Amino acid sequence: ANPDLLDTLKQKGILSDDEYRQLRDQQQHDQATTPGATFSADKGLTLATADGAYTLQFGIFQQLDFAAYDADGSDLADGSQLRRSRIALGGKLGSDWQYRFQYEFAKGSASITDAYVTYAGFKPLTVKLGQAKLPFSMESLSSASTTTFMERGLPAYVISPILRAPGVQLSSTGRHWSLAGGVSGEPLGNSSSGDEGWGIAARATFAPYVANHRVVHLGAGINWRKPTQDNSGTTPSTSAVTFSGKPESGQAPSFVSTKAMLDVGSYRLSNAEFAAALGAASLQSEYLWINVQRDNGQDDLAFSSWYAQLAYTLTGEARPYSVSKGSFGAIVPNTPFGAQGWGAFEVAARMSQLDLDDGSVTGGNERDLTFGLSWYLNRYLRVSANVVKVLKVDGGSYDGQKPVAYQMRLQFSI
Amino acid sequence: ANPDLLDTLKQKGILSDDEYRQLRDQQQHDQATTPGATFSADKGLTLATADGAYTLQFGIFQQLDFAAYDADGSDLADGSQLRRSRIALGGKLGSDWQYRFQYEFAKGSASITDAYVTYAGFKPLTVKLGQAKLPFSMESLSSASTTTFMERGLPAYVISPILRAPGVQLSSTGRHWSLAGGVSGEPLGNSSSGDEGWGIAARATFAPYVANHRVVHLGAGINWRKPTQDNSGTTPSTSAVTFSGKPESGQAPSFVSTKAMLDVGSYRLSNAEFAAALGAASLQSEYLWINVQRDNGQDDLAFSSWYAQLAYTLTGEARPYSVSKGSFGAIVPNTPFGAQGWGAFEVAARMSQLDLDDGSVTGGNERDLTFGLSWYLNRYLRVSANVVKVLKVDGGSYDGQKPVAYQMRLQFSI
Amino acid sequence: ANPDLLDTLKQKGILSDDEYRQLRDQQQHDQATTPGATFSADKGLTLATADGAYTLQFGIFQQLDFAAYDADGSDLADGSQLRRSRIALGGKLGSDWQYRFQYEFAKGSASITDAYVTYAGFKPLTVKLGQAKLPFSMESLSSASTTTFMERGLPAYVISPILRAPGVQLSSTGRHWSLAGGVSGEPLGNSSSGDEGWGIAARATFAPYVANHRVVHLGAGINWRKPTQDNSGTTPSTSAVTFSGKPESGQAPSFVSTKAMLDVGSYRLSNAEFAAALGAASLQSEYLWINVQRDNGQDDLAFSSWYAQLAYTLTGEARPYSVSKGSFGAIVPNTPFGAQGWGAFEVAARMSQLDLDDGSVTGGNERDLTFGLSWYLNRYLRVSANVVKVLKVDGGSYDGQKPVAYQMRLQFSI
Repeated sequence: ANPDLLDTLKQKGILSDDEYRQLRDQQQHDQATTPGATFSADKGLTLATADGAYTLQFGIFQQLDFAAYDADGSDLADGSQLRRSRIALGGKLGSDWQYRFQYEFAKGSASITDAYVTYAGFKPLTVKLGQAKLPFSMESLSSASTTTFMERGLPAYVISPILRAPGVQLSSTGRHWSLAGGVSGEPLGNSSSGDEGWGIAARATFAPYVANHRVVHLGAGINWRKPTQDNSGTTPSTSAVTFSGKPESGQAPSFVSTKAMLDVGSYRLSNAEFAAALGAASLQSEYLWINVQRDNGQDDLAFSSWYAQLAYTLTGEARPYSVSKGSFGAIVPNTPFGAQGWGAFEVAARMSQLDLDDGSVTGGNERDLTFGLSWYLNRYLRVSANVVKVLKVDGGSYDGQKPVAYQMRLQFSI
Repeated sequence: ANPDLLDTLKQKGILSDDEYRQLRDQQQHDQATTPGATFSADKGLTLATADGAYTLQFGIFQQLDFAAYDADGSDLADGSQLRRSRIALGGKLGSDWQYRFQYEFAKGSASITDAYVTYAGFKPLTVKLGQAKLPFSMESLSSASTTTFMERGLPAYVISPILRAPGVQLSSTGRHWSLAGGVSGEPLGNSSSGDEGWGIAARATFAPYVANHRVVHLGAGINWRKPTQDNSGTTPSTSAVTFSGKPESGQAPSFVSTKAMLDVGSYRLSNAEFAAALGAASLQSEYLWINVQRDNGQDDLAFSSWYAQLAYTLTGEARPYSVSKGSFGAIVPNTPFGAQGWGAFEVAARMSQLDLDDGSVTGGNERDLTFGLSWYLNRYLRVSANVVKVLKVDGGSYDGQKPVAYQMRLQFSI
Repeated sequence: ANPDLLDTLKQKGILSDDEYRQLRDQQQHDQATTPGATFSADKGLTLATADGAYTLQFGIFQQLDFAAYDADGSDLADGSQLRRSRIALGGKLGSDWQYRFQYEFAKGSASITDAYVTYAGFKPLTVKLGQAKLPFSMESLSSASTTTFMERGLPAYVISPILRAPGVQLSSTGRHWSLAGGVSGEPLGNSSSGDEGWGIAARATFAPYVANHRVVHLGAGINWRKPTQDNSGTTPSTSAVTFSGKPESGQAPSFVSTKAMLDVGSYRLSNAEFAAALGAASLQSEYLWINVQRDNGQDDLAFSSWYAQLAYTLTGEARPYSVSKGSFGAIVPNTPFGAQGWGAFEVAARMSQLDLDDGSVTGGNERDLTFGLSWYLNRYLRVSANVVKVLKVDGGSYDGQKPVAYQMRLQFSI
């Protein structure tokens, strides 16, 4: 019962019941039909119509890296790099439709990343049309602004060439599970002569236990693709596919690589995910199987990759888990940096491996150990320091090398 | 006479006349000086100051295509393509000035399309400064988001290299007519050594009959240009101009082409337009004359092109006609897709021809027949399916080929 | 004491003191928690939360140039050019943080210019993190939208390759002075093999006299850099640095140039600034010393450059001076173009020189004289006309040439 002038005047008998009712109705009508707009910085920079039905959200995502290398015999150049520089426009168009378009400017040219609309009118299904991340791999589906380390683990380098592709996706979710699947073509911007490649991807996640800052996560996915059939007659001749991996450092070259594998009829990635969080501590891991089916009498090939990581927030904040996405979100410090406090600090360690040796392909087998420290100044700014120790590289062009990468990142995301 | 507290209190004698007047004045002053803002999604995503005098409108325009070809002997590759991906900022700056800047991101790099300001203070003239579409051809002036078919007809391929160019335009309009003309340089982003080309373009339209969903449109235009005088001494030596045409499919190669015509002193495009609409049905057609004047004793050349199309909205919506623009706008479904309905459906057919054979130039003569189906889900989303049958190609590199293109588009525009 | 209903009712004894206080508190609470938003076009296009703590400012900055040359023996091509085409997002995030990200689209690809956050919580220091203009040279620090002439004077061509670079800057200011300094790497987007170059820059300004439209400005700065150590083994071998200068015309080639100077260990730019303004008249000048230290037994080198300019606003507007920035801002016409007036007109003249001859390097010595006329239609639109007369070019590839450049610009900035 907030104090109110109309109420007060009515109680005093100054306004009759009729007058009170009419004035109250008029007041409510005025408020409802105010054209107005709201703008908030709570979750991105969001502009909304007065009734909230239509929104326009501005996303700004910038990562500036510095890396120095302690390497023997490799030409690893120290320096800085704009790792990601993205602008996004997204929002709601009435109750059932959402849209999102994001552009990447860090590569010296502009390209589109996300470009989709979603429709939630066929409940309980959500339909996504356009280019979006394929439903595969917990770590790859996590926003690059929220991953614990500066770079995703070694399995992500196999997934990243087809991280996003245009197509149709269906998804649904319950209290403890999520399901998503879709059909897609080649990523936008890929140009190659020949009939375009395509694929299907699907992912299921199950969180048997989700309570206040405690979660157990299980997941599995499959990502089958038929590469573009190059019929141009030039070399590399037909259906070349390459898998490779950098030593978890954005400015380093690929230390392991299958080089172009020709005559690939199709390939299949499949994975298993396990994660758990207990308050400020979390564990996350994935195993990736890579199977390549080749034509023209060439051998089929099988590779594998995995990572496992532990993270702990010294200041106590938990990594928020989303059941519908089946992944962790961004850490938001309890007290932002400034007069009241210092923000949040997180330490983490990760082991990861990528084995690209099989049959006639000697791409190399790499294992990395990474230590990470993150300082979340507020919900917008994050400073990260990572040390990556390459434990081994067996085979390939970088056989036997064991460099160390020291890298820092300044991240702004809103 | 809405109920109002101040009125009520005055009638009751609680407020004196003086008090009432002062409080009323203060209330009005408060409302007028509220900083405020309005945001609406009715016509684009428009942010406005409280008084509406200054606005910022966000435009998002995305087209994602898929095409498959049934072709003998041609290397037409099936696949998907980001056809257009544009972001625009525009709006009003007070009563007389407007601005618009649009960027295109679909080409792998970013480039500017529209970049102009308009001034409406010299009534009845409107002045446009900067890069804008040249005033020529009904179909080329129609927004690519509103054209009936996925690609404009064959004449548009001759116009498209100079669709937009920087310069000055004047325009005026009346109840039944529009006039526009301007001088322009080479399109922004064109780089060539030599003194820059320029041109003049003008268009007149007349709509003798414009009533509720009924319109008859007549139009004529001229577009004269002097190409850039290449004085670099390299091949192609001087003033090369090329006209070509794709089979109305964004991912196909040009089936007819004059190749580079050297020694072009100037060229002139002229056209005649006829269109009519009756309720849900419309007819639209243009004829284009192409005249090339060449130096150094080379023959002058004459080519021609035309299209004629019929469209019918199964769900009854009319194509809105703008007298001041002399063109049709976007179909907005009576009932958007969702709980209430299915959106709007439109069927259409078009014949078009481009003849690039004259004198020593044997660029080929192509005729296409296109059938189109469009589904307007709401005012933002459109799905199109087009089938283009190449009826003939006489001459040129694709002589005798008659492929069929099957293509679909997902379009988001706001 | 504005009239107010609650006050009035209290004075009349209709509301008790308690009721009055409660209703007043509630009213103030309602106003403070209104979601709301404000949008204004006074200083850029600025969207703000109702309490003003969070803002999003849209910047649009466009320059369209036309140039014609009167040159003997040079291949200077007349024509138009999109000189700058920039979109910026910036604003406040609470009381201490600000951000700014600006993209440039005029080069045929997109690149980032400004990309930084500032923190003002360590008073009296301001910390700037990310890529920003280095604190060096009054004219280079002035926004390209506010410089008196279309192009900055000849010293700016030496500074422009490192105008902006990523790093950390600290700054502070008082009633009569400003101090800024920082450490930076190579500009974002520069790609070169080898360990990345870096540098330190600092600037001090002193304005002994700042009163209503009168100012005397003194400044000095230093900009020391170690170039990227190219260890790729290819030519140019190591640490190549080039200084060059265009004849103050964006579409002209460089008339003087040191070509690639090899084996540069480090180089140092230092400058002195003097400026003064009295009402509508202003004087601005800078002298630049360039010292190059070379390795491998090569001679050290010393070059120099300067400019001095006079400007006068015929319509009486003063150039606003900012003590904290140590530079002039944009002229805003007293009466904008339209029914009430014609905007502002400014005339100006500048002499500038760049001497790139020393030791074994014969880059040439150029002196230019420029006359400029600017028409500020309103706070958004500016039309400029400049005539640049090259007075002499001694040495270098353009030895003895004395072209004249006639150039115009249409500028939109908000």
